[in-house]
Amino acid sequence: MKINGKPYRSIWREASGEVRIIDQRWLPHELRIVALSSREDYAVAIRDMWVRGAPLIGATAAYGVAGQMGRDPSDASLSETWEVLHETRPTAINLRWALDEMERVLRPLPAAERAAAATKRADEIADEDVEINRRIGAHGLALIREIAAKKPGKPVNILTHCNAGWPATVDWGTATSPIYHAVEAGIAVHVFVDETRPRNQGAQLTAWELNAAGISHDLIVDNAGGHLMQHGEVDLVIVGTDRTTAQGDVCNKIGTYLKALAAKANDVPFYVALPSPTIDWTVVDGVKEIPIEERSDREVTHVQGRDASGQIIQVQISPDGTGGRNPAFDVTPAALVTGLITERGICRADAAAMEAMFGDLKAAALSR
Amino acid sequence: MKINGKPYRSIWREASGEVRIIDQRWLPHELRIVALSSREDYAVAIRDMWVRGAPLIGATAAYGVAGQMGRDPSDASLSETWEVLHETRPTAINLRWALDEMERVLRPLPAAERAAAATKRADEIADEDVEINRRIGAHGLALIREIAAKKPGKPVNILTHCNAGWPATVDWGTATSPIYHAVEAGIAVHVFVDETRPRNQGAQLTAWELNAAGISHDLIVDNAGGHLMQHGEVDLVIVGTDRTTAQGDVCNKIGTYLKALAAKANDVPFYVALPSPTIDWTVVDGVKEIPIEERSDREVTHVQGRDASGQIIQVQISPDGTGGRNPAFDVTPAALVTGLITERGICRADAAAMEAMFGDLKAAALSR
Repeated sequence: MKINGKPYRSIWREASGEVRIIDQRWLPHELRIVALSSREDYAVAIRDMWVRGAPLIGATAAYGVAGQMGRDPSDASLSETWEVLHETRPTAINLRWALDEMERVLRPLPAAERAAAATKRADEIADEDVEINRRIGAHGLALIREIAAKKPGKPVNILTHCNAGWPATVDWGTATSPIYHAVEAGIAVHVFVDETRPRNQGAQLTAWELNAAGISHDLIVDNAGGHLMQHGEVDLVIVGTDRTTAQGDVCNKIGTYLKALAAKANDVPFYVALPSPTIDWTVVDGVKEIPIEERSDREVTHVQGRDASGQIIQVQISPDGTGGRNPAFDVTPAALVTGLITERGICRADAAAMEAMFGDLKAAALSR
Repeated sequence: MKINGKPYRSIWREASGEVRIIDQRWLPHELRIVALSSREDYAVAIRDMWVRGAPLIGATAAYGVAGQMGRDPSDASLSETWEVLHETRPTAINLRWALDEMERVLRPLPAAERAAAATKRADEIADEDVEINRRIGAHGLALIREIAAKKPGKPVNILTHCNAGWPATVDWGTATSPIYHAVEAGIAVHVFVDETRPRNQGAQLTAWELNAAGISHDLIVDNAGGHLMQHGEVDLVIVGTDRTTAQGDVCNKIGTYLKALAAKANDVPFYVALPSPTIDWTVVDGVKEIPIEERSDREVTHVQGRDASGQIIQVQISPDGTGGRNPAFDVTPAALVTGLITERGICRADAAAMEAMFGDLKAAALSR
């Protein structure tokens, strides 16, 4: 998407072949673009969250393998690279998928052919992600268009939580893709951006990307969405998801569930945008079955921001001696979800509808 | 309540007659106690939020009048003091009530008798607030005791939002009073403290007072309460209120409504602790009738905390160019409220029950 008018992806290859990323640790305050070269560069970029978001992590790992194949295309090098990159974020499903995919393509080839094939496949993985997100946007656009038709001359007000934007993917984003498509289609939209404590990805990333694209938006505290919905100020909620169950329960950043409850109580449509690979067909009841990661309570007791001198620092908001609990995700039961916006179309969040649209994927997943 | 074992009120008179307060701007990082002397001291303390919370503002204003009567007990001085103190926080109901009450008591007296009478009445106003909150605590204790009886050997887990603690009153607090009473009664409790963005009163005040009192607690982000309730980790929610309508709708700090929705969805009792004077008998439908104050978006885009050098500063969390919306309160409809914990007992949140318990107050309010 565009940053001040210039199109970007979150990872790209220059004409010279050099791979570059946006080092997202400095957002929203600074746009720092860095080149990744050695395998260690890639490992650090993933592990230390210079890049984040499941699809982008996958694409970054694929380019990491490609870079290494340019230096040492041996079997041992391929195996070692899988290990080194996999251990950077061991729970990220897309990371493993991308590494396995590179392994599948490269292993049968003679070493001399691996570098070129790896670059080609890494480019494809990135492009496939862009295409999936473009399709999500096209399907989501139809929803926004319907709402716009009912309130001519007024913007469609969309609330989103956390960041499921283009910096979490290669381009377009998931939850933001319908918004970008609507803007391109000339539909007036206004976005309410939850700040999404504890890590403030709303303020840090979603507000940044909308600001950079010149899209109308307001930052709100995580507490404010219910009030806005109660007063008819939100037409539509769109969020992303880290994992969706076979019955349509949605695991996403902590606080999503509260917004879904408010949407239900106030008859606001609540949609979840997702690429179909994030559906986990082995899980049905998300509340009972999905273990929720508890992260360090330092994220709760401290907040990162820019001080008056321009330094990015952390401040402590709590008294010394107070600890915290920090569940990182929550599960929104399918009954609160109006629909799933996927690359194949909009799907009801229930087992039968999901089976009807994704039966092939379900069968493949369960046969593994 | 106690700070590291030593009992305090939020405002008190020393044996010397000097009035002292806790300057709450420095909490939770520093306990600064300051003496108030001139009328300007009192005006600044209220206006600049060295003291906050409706009951404490009222008591502080009463002592401000008393101090002025010691210097100049004339009619003109009394009138001017009413004006000067009233304009510090013009929308605070308790402020006006306390000033009117001092006026009512003092105006008929000869000037020579006013200083002593004013000090006596200010002491009474403070003591009356303490007594109201003590009674709220005694009634709330019964609720906690019931829950404790059902889970022997395990703590009662209570979630609270914002700060309705003793620093908002003269002592005990409203929502925290049942908690302090439970601890004094030997009941094990654990408190989940919402940080309550944008001003973080949970982290800044509630965590501070529980920490100072040695009560088990965890700070959580505002996003986390729904997840905890969904997983049976919360036995009871108790919050305060700024204004309660005649049918039991509750206007409180932004985000309260989201917690009430989550409590309802998960069968967690949701109680509101309030002194009966915060019931506004002239308002019935809170969502439709109560105007919600929108505060500066700087509170959303910035966060206050302590930096590594110990300075209390603000950091910016959003990109330059992003603005925000900042509704400060929301309204929780009575249907989501299990009950009101008042100084007269626990009352159902509906018009008939409230009329039955507070008919005299309603009649008096509506006849004004």
